[in-house]
Amino acid sequence: SDNKMSIDNKEKIRAGLEDLMKRRFFITQSFSIYGGQAGLYDYGPPGCAVKANLINLWRQHFVLNEDMSEVDCVSVTPEQVLKASGHVAKFADFMVKDEVTKAFYRADHILEAHIQTLLKDTSKMSKEQIEELNFVLAKAGDYNQEQLKQALNKYNVKAPETGNALTEPYPFNLMFQTQIGPSGLSTGYLRPETAQGIFTNFGKLYEYNGKKLPFAAAQIGNAFRNEIAPRAGLLRVREFTMAEIEHFVNPNNKTHPKFQEIQHIQANLLSSDSQDKSSEIEVCTFGDAVQKKLIDNETLAYFMARTQQFLHTVGIKPQGLRFRQHQKNEMAHYAQDCWDAEILSSYGWVECVGHADRSCYDLKVHATESKSNLSAYEEFKEPQFVDIAKVVVMPAAISKKHRAAVSPIKKYLTELKDDLTKALEIQETITKDGHYNLVLDGNTYDITADMVTISKAQEKKNGHTFFPHVIEPSFGLGRIIYSILEQNFYTRENDEQRGVLSLPAIIAPVKASILPLTSSDRIAPFVQTISKSLKEVNISTKVDDTGNAIGRKYARTDEIGIPFGVTIDFQTIEDNTVTLRERDTTKQVRIPISELSSTLRKLCDLTVSWSDILKTFPIYENQSE
Amino acid sequence: SDNKMSIDNKEKIRAGLEDLMKRRFFITQSFSIYGGQAGLYDYGPPGCAVKANLINLWRQHFVLNEDMSEVDCVSVTPEQVLKASGHVAKFADFMVKDEVTKAFYRADHILEAHIQTLLKDTSKMSKEQIEELNFVLAKAGDYNQEQLKQALNKYNVKAPETGNALTEPYPFNLMFQTQIGPSGLSTGYLRPETAQGIFTNFGKLYEYNGKKLPFAAAQIGNAFRNEIAPRAGLLRVREFTMAEIEHFVNPNNKTHPKFQEIQHIQANLLSSDSQDKSSEIEVCTFGDAVQKKLIDNETLAYFMARTQQFLHTVGIKPQGLRFRQHQKNEMAHYAQDCWDAEILSSYGWVECVGHADRSCYDLKVHATESKSNLSAYEEFKEPQFVDIAKVVVMPAAISKKHRAAVSPIKKYLTELKDDLTKALEIQETITKDGHYNLVLDGNTYDITADMVTISKAQEKKNGHTFFPHVIEPSFGLGRIIYSILEQNFYTRENDEQRGVLSLPAIIAPVKASILPLTSSDRIAPFVQTISKSLKEVNISTKVDDTGNAIGRKYARTDEIGIPFGVTIDFQTIEDNTVTLRERDTTKQVRIPISELSSTLRKLCDLTVSWSDILKTFPIYENQSE
Repeated sequence: SDNKMSIDNKEKIRAGLEDLMKRRFFITQSFSIYGGQAGLYDYGPPGCAVKANLINLWRQHFVLNEDMSEVDCVSVTPEQVLKASGHVAKFADFMVKDEVTKAFYRADHILEAHIQTLLKDTSKMSKEQIEELNFVLAKAGDYNQEQLKQALNKYNVKAPETGNALTEPYPFNLMFQTQIGPSGLSTGYLRPETAQGIFTNFGKLYEYNGKKLPFAAAQIGNAFRNEIAPRAGLLRVREFTMAEIEHFVNPNNKTHPKFQEIQHIQANLLSSDSQDKSSEIEVCTFGDAVQKKLIDNETLAYFMARTQQFLHTVGIKPQGLRFRQHQKNEMAHYAQDCWDAEILSSYGWVECVGHADRSCYDLKVHATESKSNLSAYEEFKEPQFVDIAKVVVMPAAISKKHRAAVSPIKKYLTELKDDLTKALEIQETITKDGHYNLVLDGNTYDITADMVTISKAQEKKNGHTFFPHVIEPSFGLGRIIYSILEQNFYTRENDEQRGVLSLPAIIAPVKASILPLTSSDRIAPFVQTISKSLKEVNISTKVDDTGNAIGRKYARTDEIGIPFGVTIDFQTIEDNTVTLRERDTTKQVRIPISELSSTLRKLCDLTVSWSDILKTFPIYENQSE
Repeated sequence: SDNKMSIDNKEKIRAGLEDLMKRRFFITQSFSIYGGQAGLYDYGPPGCAVKANLINLWRQHFVLNEDMSEVDCVSVTPEQVLKASGHVAKFADFMVKDEVTKAFYRADHILEAHIQTLLKDTSKMSKEQIEELNFVLAKAGDYNQEQLKQALNKYNVKAPETGNALTEPYPFNLMFQTQIGPSGLSTGYLRPETAQGIFTNFGKLYEYNGKKLPFAAAQIGNAFRNEIAPRAGLLRVREFTMAEIEHFVNPNNKTHPKFQEIQHIQANLLSSDSQDKSSEIEVCTFGDAVQKKLIDNETLAYFMARTQQFLHTVGIKPQGLRFRQHQKNEMAHYAQDCWDAEILSSYGWVECVGHADRSCYDLKVHATESKSNLSAYEEFKEPQFVDIAKVVVMPAAISKKHRAAVSPIKKYLTELKDDLTKALEIQETITKDGHYNLVLDGNTYDITADMVTISKAQEKKNGHTFFPHVIEPSFGLGRIIYSILEQNFYTRENDEQRGVLSLPAIIAPVKASILPLTSSDRIAPFVQTISKSLKEVNISTKVDDTGNAIGRKYARTDEIGIPFGVTIDFQTIEDNTVTLRERDTTKQVRIPISELSSTLRKLCDLTVSWSDILKTFPIYENQSE
């Protein structure tokens, strides 16, 4: 029952799984009776149960065990918030249009498709040419507007259906836009990530956590991205559930108190350096990775380890999980270090969880834009001398030139005291250029040497105010669910038609099937009794009382990943025992009904293993499977 | 600790609760650092935990125990779907604008405010005039466009700020509109309810349930309503979480197999008749209510009873819950019967759960609009003679007049066989008027007596095809959460400042507080051990290791509804026991640490009661509370 993912059979696995997902209503295209809508998917009952189980476990693994502050914020977001975060200006993909028909394409997709076509016949190409094309193919997804423009020109890419010329690539913002209220003046967007709800509530969260750092906030919720042309099935969709953590730390101390609990754990690491060279995975403990500065800090590594534990628990295979470090050109300018947990599926290695040290970027931009205090205060153990800017302001000189604005200019300059870097930069400009252009509320003021003198000084302080840094693990739950299904899907070797989803019990959509051997009136009452007793201990069940043979019934439960099967037969009537079957081993034991619910509860809670059960109860020989 | 809601102190209760919710970050206005946005609220950690607990319990109470098929569908919905459901045309409130300033108002709000002003001085009014004004005040919220127009004219209502004339009332659609993809041609809306995702997936759900009726589908998810002017705090918001059930039944059989389990339960019923007369609540069992046809059918009554059980479990007081039947003019034309579970709070009786028998309306409109089969098939126990339409079509006559459309017209007429009502209606029209205007795909065809003859006939059939009826319980979770908080909030009589949230343990945001008596180094290690042992059994905890006195610590935990407090003191160091305190009785016992986690687990699972604990362990006398 081991994972059989390989390049050879990945097409077959994907086809088999997609057929199963459709037949058994795991996941379906939304509004399919109306022809469907690209990039929108609904979860049917088994998919929805897997998702609910995943969320419950995530909450237990992270929120409960790490004492996080979970919040639940709205999706509809005013424009101002997403302007501050940078999403209104920059959260875009690049499009091109057919100059004649106005059909549109994603610029990187059309470039990739063109290169793939070129690579189909390399007989007349030099080694260098082939290498160049492969390089472009690998990088197209990361190209900016200018790079895309140049590549589309260089390879003379045309509209695929018509051969017409294409427009230059231009950005299309990926946020769904709407209007809040009836005024027509209040633009809003659906959030493209859940994180902004946490950042904008930082002040309240800091207070909730007793004004102590570090603390983490978490959020599970939907996010929306208006993709230009969604493809890759469940991996790139327009509406999806995320689970995000924002762990706020003092930038001077990114150690983690529980680091020793995870430092011995081994991980598959693909560093930025390695991607430049051999692209070889390094197997290394988190402890070593931090020691040799491969991973920037303990807290980032701690969350990577906790993510790995979580993913293994929900059914991701160790060999199907790696952490890939972002390369310098991929990372936002403010990010200190980023590692994506990538999971292997038929689509290749797919980013499912991001781990980013985002420095203080988010809190800083929101503090500036909203003019709110989003900083933290740390009291020193004993008073310290700290570097500050000594600012001497000459109001009379300011007044001479900027009479109406003396007070805001004075306020701005005085407050430079706690921002030494900025203060020295201003002084340097004045010294060098003779003046500095100060922009306040949209107006520019000429500041000259007679108005202010700035120098470095020291001050004795009891504490300091700073923007916390944030370390952000961000989970795409839909991608994880798809990956779990693929990595745990196989067909029994003796029979190609019998697909099995070998899901861990904790994730399985239904925990136990109840299978009456025949439709005899003497057997039926046991179905009710057993079903009720299992519900009382919160074990979900599915009854199959069709006339199918028992082997066929087992096959149908294996297919949706039900780990345990309870069969009621004629012996049940005589001695109140049933058979209990485990999906992966297909082994069965004979167990008294009185012990069934407690045994299944323990099996699902992992406090007892199937091999324990095989030792405790008599093995039952399989008649007909 | 009983609920103290009364008209006298409702303002005080609301103010006290709102202060608590703000201080302890239960719920906050979204994006408040940017000035906030009306009708959008975020849940902080305790609010979010209450919500997660409520959802888990709902899933257990309904989805697990009633074997429902839970689905999880997208919010972004193409226009076509919501046109079919009627939302694009009809899901609107009425607005008026100041003719000069263009300031806008909700028409019913402005009418109500005007009437309330008039009612402030009734000295010159007749009894009839006062009665009329009170009647308008009560009904304004249900007025249609014409009724609002007439009332605004009659009472000469002007813009409140300016005294300017107002526009006539006009509809404003309450759905948030957006564009799907970059074409600009694909209008979508955020779903105003979760139900449409279930209706559009009916075919797959029917198959998933073995093509047997009845079955129920459920969905928990967000819905969005772009309110004109949100008010009433958490009770009318623009984005909210719903939990909806669509129970599909054969219209000929609305009995429920588990009805006998709930028929003895008493409920507070406010019938449609009673609202016309005395508005008196009738206390009556669900069994009697169905027997005397007060509630239309067993299935509707079954769900009302299950809702009542759920609401009582989560902390709604029996005297603070009633079921109000919709009056004829409130109900949609297709609805058979509707009962709202209304909960009492400082806002009065507020609808929190709707229970509607929606007949086959939803499936029928989607089947028509999508041209999909959304019907069910029932095999008769033995073949039956059923009434059908005998349709004799004369293609030659049709061809003479509508040459190009013979085949669709013929198809339409032939298929009338299974729609006897429609068929006879057409025949009757032809007989009476000499012809019938048949509209097919937007074209109208004149059908005359020479083209078709229709008569009633009988046919022997093995089964029949029909649209299932749907019974829909629909929960507004935010309203329920607010109501729970209000009904369980009180201040201790000995001390006005000590607010208590008397939440049931199953709903409480945190189950146990851990309170070290002092900050002694000898006490601190116990905090870690106990916290860890409780997490292992999934008990959430909150440590208060501030220097506050123990009484103050208890007050802070009471305020956010933590039911159990564990205090570690110097005796703990000697004998490994702690005190365990219950919030509502404030009684304490002395309990060994080794028994703490299992005891708390049982208390939270309700398998043991606090009075059992008081009998099992020695009572500990309270020193300082």
